[in-house]
Amino acid sequence: MYVKIKRKQYAVGVDIGGTKILLLITDALGNVIYKRKVDSSGDLSVICEMIDSATKEANIAKHEIIGMTIGVPGDVNSIDGIVRSSIQMGWKDINIKEYISSRFCFPVDIKNDVNLAALGERWIGNGRNSDHLIYISIGTGLGGAIIANGRLIEGSTYSAGEFGYIIDKDDINRGVMNGLDQFGSLEKRISGNTLNEKAQKIGLSSKELFVEYNNGNDAAKEIIDCFVRELSVVIANLVSILNPEYVIIGGGVSESMDCIQDLIVDYVKSLTIFSTEIRLSKLGGDAGAFGCIYNVLYQINDSSRIPDSASRG
Amino acid sequence: MYVKIKRKQYAVGVDIGGTKILLLITDALGNVIYKRKVDSSGDLSVICEMIDSATKEANIAKHEIIGMTIGVPGDVNSIDGIVRSSIQMGWKDINIKEYISSRFCFPVDIKNDVNLAALGERWIGNGRNSDHLIYISIGTGLGGAIIANGRLIEGSTYSAGEFGYIIDKDDINRGVMNGLDQFGSLEKRISGNTLNEKAQKIGLSSKELFVEYNNGNDAAKEIIDCFVRELSVVIANLVSILNPEYVIIGGGVSESMDCIQDLIVDYVKSLTIFSTEIRLSKLGGDAGAFGCIYNVLYQINDSSRIPDSASRG
Repeated sequence: MYVKIKRKQYAVGVDIGGTKILLLITDALGNVIYKRKVDSSGDLSVICEMIDSATKEANIAKHEIIGMTIGVPGDVNSIDGIVRSSIQMGWKDINIKEYISSRFCFPVDIKNDVNLAALGERWIGNGRNSDHLIYISIGTGLGGAIIANGRLIEGSTYSAGEFGYIIDKDDINRGVMNGLDQFGSLEKRISGNTLNEKAQKIGLSSKELFVEYNNGNDAAKEIIDCFVRELSVVIANLVSILNPEYVIIGGGVSESMDCIQDLIVDYVKSLTIFSTEIRLSKLGGDAGAFGCIYNVLYQINDSSRIPDSASRG
Repeated sequence: MYVKIKRKQYAVGVDIGGTKILLLITDALGNVIYKRKVDSSGDLSVICEMIDSATKEANIAKHEIIGMTIGVPGDVNSIDGIVRSSIQMGWKDINIKEYISSRFCFPVDIKNDVNLAALGERWIGNGRNSDHLIYISIGTGLGGAIIANGRLIEGSTYSAGEFGYIIDKDDINRGVMNGLDQFGSLEKRISGNTLNEKAQKIGLSSKELFVEYNNGNDAAKEIIDCFVRELSVVIANLVSILNPEYVIIGGGVSESMDCIQDLIVDYVKSLTIFSTEIRLSKLGGDAGAFGCIYNVLYQINDSSRIPDSASRG
């Protein structure tokens, strides 16, 4: 499974999550030579040790590493490498790039994990090569990323794509406002968390919710129908605003969404005059780590242009 | 007023509207040497004659013209120069670029008029130099444009920025859906047209509506408050989605909006956690034509990158 090629140049991707960290090492062509999921830690020195162990296990010398990109959940200044706020990791205003760079001899880049997942999906996932795509991540919360003109749209302070903060008049009327370091208004309507809460009220887990929906359970149907409606309105508006070729839905919840994909496609079609192709994530939980690798191989020295897929595919 | 400099190279901008056409000719530095507003026509040969007359009046030889950009209201494929649909001009699937190019010896470029207005505002208006801005045009209808990473975001089929098609659950519940060649759902809530209709019901024009609002007229206040609320929700969501440095509001209605700008700023601040600066258009009705000139001088041979302002300022 691990194909080691002669050219001794490697890229390291580290996708940090609240519970797990995915470590990925590939050669310069993007062939995976090491992949491991480990328990997460908010302690940067522990993370550095994990990275160190990974390179040793993969039998790679540090000077053979072209660079490393690290994905962090939360609000990240991707130029300075400062994590302004990551609730999941308990980090606030920490210069991760500076700390980790001081421990290794290769270039280190830090980005928002959902933005990296979008790059991963564009590279070797379901948004392959498209210059215009939107990625929506429905996990515990709801995040997003935008690629337009072949480039990641990070916005003026690297906060673009925060779809979870989309608000509507219902939210305002109910007083469900957006606040710093809180779930956003849309996130309170659509997220794994919200689905879980609703599922628990009828004695189910959120995975069982989708199974029961397929079995024709009325209570499950009501919850899922509401989820489909809310999500479709958001997708339709993003399509009218950004005219993407693809909308890719990733994150943990997307793994159960096969059964409602057609419903969403049809509903979105009824809400916007612009066409798009709605796809579920191909890479699943690996999207972020592959985005890290992509960032090392193709972007670390050029934060602007996303080239077409590498030969790896 | 018309300063003619020695360097004999000129740019032509033609902003076509439903009632008027604005013709602008500048030198290579962007200094205006000719500007005229004439009655509009849907007849392309008449438009070509207008352009011809303008260059003669400005005393310019055709070979001195670097290029011409034409702004068209509606759905424009800006690469092929095909106007897929322009209700205002009565055009459908017409290759404007091909027709007009065949009549002149210089390069011709066709773009959506609101996208050009955004370029104009970025260049010498209120979005000066920003790489991340949103432009909202509230005229008869409602249109928009996005600049991100210093480039116009046109989307996969050149339809990005169509904020007028944003829909919410209220629209859906009331059956106010989006349809081809119709006002969009949001456009039916926020536009000059809608303001006019509401104003007429209380015996006012839409301009008088803002005056009466300032005079404390309760009926006018109700209409304007609703306008402020609807617009602020849209701006807040665009800010959460795109994280722009500036949001610029242009179009005819914006000329009356001084008195509610602070209200909008405050309301938007309460709806999103991300900051932005909300400004009214500086160039007003000239924004589109200046965007045409900008497109000729800086983009016609590079549709990708928007450089910083020219010396003209």
